[in-house]
Amino acid sequence: MRFKLTIEYDGTDYHGWQVQPDGRTVQGVLEDAVGRLCGERARFTAAGRTDAGVHASGQVVSVLLQRDICAARFMDALNALTPQDLAIKAVEVVADDFHPRRAARSRVYTYHIWNARWRSPFWRRYAWHVVRPLDTDAMRAAAARLRGEHDFSAFRAAGCAAKQPVRQVLRSELQRAGHLITYSIEATGFLRYMVRNIIGTLVEVGRGERRAADMDELLARRDRTLAGPTAPACGLCLTQVLY
Amino acid sequence: MRFKLTIEYDGTDYHGWQVQPDGRTVQGVLEDAVGRLCGERARFTAAGRTDAGVHASGQVVSVLLQRDICAARFMDALNALTPQDLAIKAVEVVADDFHPRRAARSRVYTYHIWNARWRSPFWRRYAWHVVRPLDTDAMRAAAARLRGEHDFSAFRAAGCAAKQPVRQVLRSELQRAGHLITYSIEATGFLRYMVRNIIGTLVEVGRGERRAADMDELLARRDRTLAGPTAPACGLCLTQVLY
Repeated sequence: MRFKLTIEYDGTDYHGWQVQPDGRTVQGVLEDAVGRLCGERARFTAAGRTDAGVHASGQVVSVLLQRDICAARFMDALNALTPQDLAIKAVEVVADDFHPRRAARSRVYTYHIWNARWRSPFWRRYAWHVVRPLDTDAMRAAAARLRGEHDFSAFRAAGCAAKQPVRQVLRSELQRAGHLITYSIEATGFLRYMVRNIIGTLVEVGRGERRAADMDELLARRDRTLAGPTAPACGLCLTQVLY
Repeated sequence: MRFKLTIEYDGTDYHGWQVQPDGRTVQGVLEDAVGRLCGERARFTAAGRTDAGVHASGQVVSVLLQRDICAARFMDALNALTPQDLAIKAVEVVADDFHPRRAARSRVYTYHIWNARWRSPFWRRYAWHVVRPLDTDAMRAAAARLRGEHDFSAFRAAGCAAKQPVRQVLRSELQRAGHLITYSIEATGFLRYMVRNIIGTLVEVGRGERRAADMDELLARRDRTLAGPTAPACGLCLTQVLY
C-alpha cells in the first residue's frame, strides 16, 4: 500500500530532508520510525527537499509499505514514534504510482522577516532578524514583478541540478503585520535557494539599495552574481503542496 | 535614574522571574547584564512574577541606576548583553518612585491550547496540547461568567501569599482559529496559578465534564478542591501591563 502523508516540522535541528551518513534528517527520522513500526526498510520521497534549517508546515511525503495498515492507525503510530519537532498531520492511501514531487501542481513557500530594532525571542527560530527599517511598499512592488513565467537563473544556487531554469510563479506577495513581514510565493517549481535568493534581493530593495523595477533587469540578465545574497534558512517554510 | 523596561521572553528555559540560588531566572539574567554594563549591583522589580516556564511578550520591569545613561543606548546595550530568548522592546525614564506592580492598573494574560490529534512542532513550547476535541462555545460561555468582581479562592494555589482573594476581571474571552484556542484575561490583579487553574477548569467544560453555568457555583463555594487541575505553564504568557 502506498501512503501520502502531510507533515509539519521545525527544521532548526534537522540537517534538511534527505538522509545523510551523519546528521539527523527528516527522511531519516521517518524511515527509522517505520522500521521500528513495521520492521521494513521503506524509502520516503518528498514533494520538496527542504535544506538544513528550513521548516515545513505542509510538506507532502510518500511511502510504499509491504504491510497492510489502516491510515488512521499508521498516523497515530508514527506520531508516537517520531520526536516532538515533527508531526504527521494527515495520512491517506493513494495509488501505487503516486509521486509527491512529480504529481504536484504547485508548491507554496513562506518566508518570515522580523523587522525591529530588538530581536524576538518567539520568532528567533522562524524568522530572519533585520534591524534596519524596511520599506515594505517597495518590497511588495518588487515581489509582484516576479509573477508569471520567467527564467530564474539570477536566483539559482551554484549547485542547482535542475535541467532548465524557467519557472512559473503564480503568486508572489508580501504583507506586514507589526514587526513581522511575511513573503508568500507559489510556483510550479523552484530552483535551489530560489526563495532565499529572492528574499536577499527583496531586502536590498527594502533598504533602498535597489529599485523595485530593477527586478525585471535582474531576471533578464540571468546572472546570479547581480542579485542579492542568500537569506538565512530559518525564515523559510514549505507551507503547502497543491495537487 | 529609574527606568521602565518592556521585555519579552521565551520562558521555556527559565526557572521563572525571581532570582534563585540555583537556576537561570529572568531577573538574574537582567541583573547580570546590568552588572556587566554599569558595574552596579542593581535590583529589578517586575509587574508580574512569572512562574517557571511561563512566557511574556509584554512584561514591565523597573530598575534604579546610580549612573546616568541614555534610554536608547541602555536598551541596545542590554539587548547585546542578554541571551537570545529574552529581548528588551522599550526603555523609558520614569519617576524615582515608580513601581511596576503597584502602579499597574491591570494585567493581561493569554493562554494557548493546541487542540488537535497531532502535536504542533511550532506550538509545542507555547501551547498546551489537548488531543480530545473541545467544545469552544461552552468554554466561551464559561469564560464569560468570570467577568466582574469575584472571590477567586476556587482558583487560588495553596501557597498563594495574597492578602485577600477578591479580584476584578475586566475581560475573559476565548477564541478559536483552526486548531489553536486562545484565552485572554485582563484583571486588576491575579492570585497564584489563577489563570492556569481557570484553564484546567475551562478544559473540563470543553470536554463536557462540567457545564458553563457551574462556574458560578465554583466561585461561590470558594473551594480549590472543587475546580479543575492546574494547566501546564508552557501555554501561559503575560502579554500586557496597563498603567
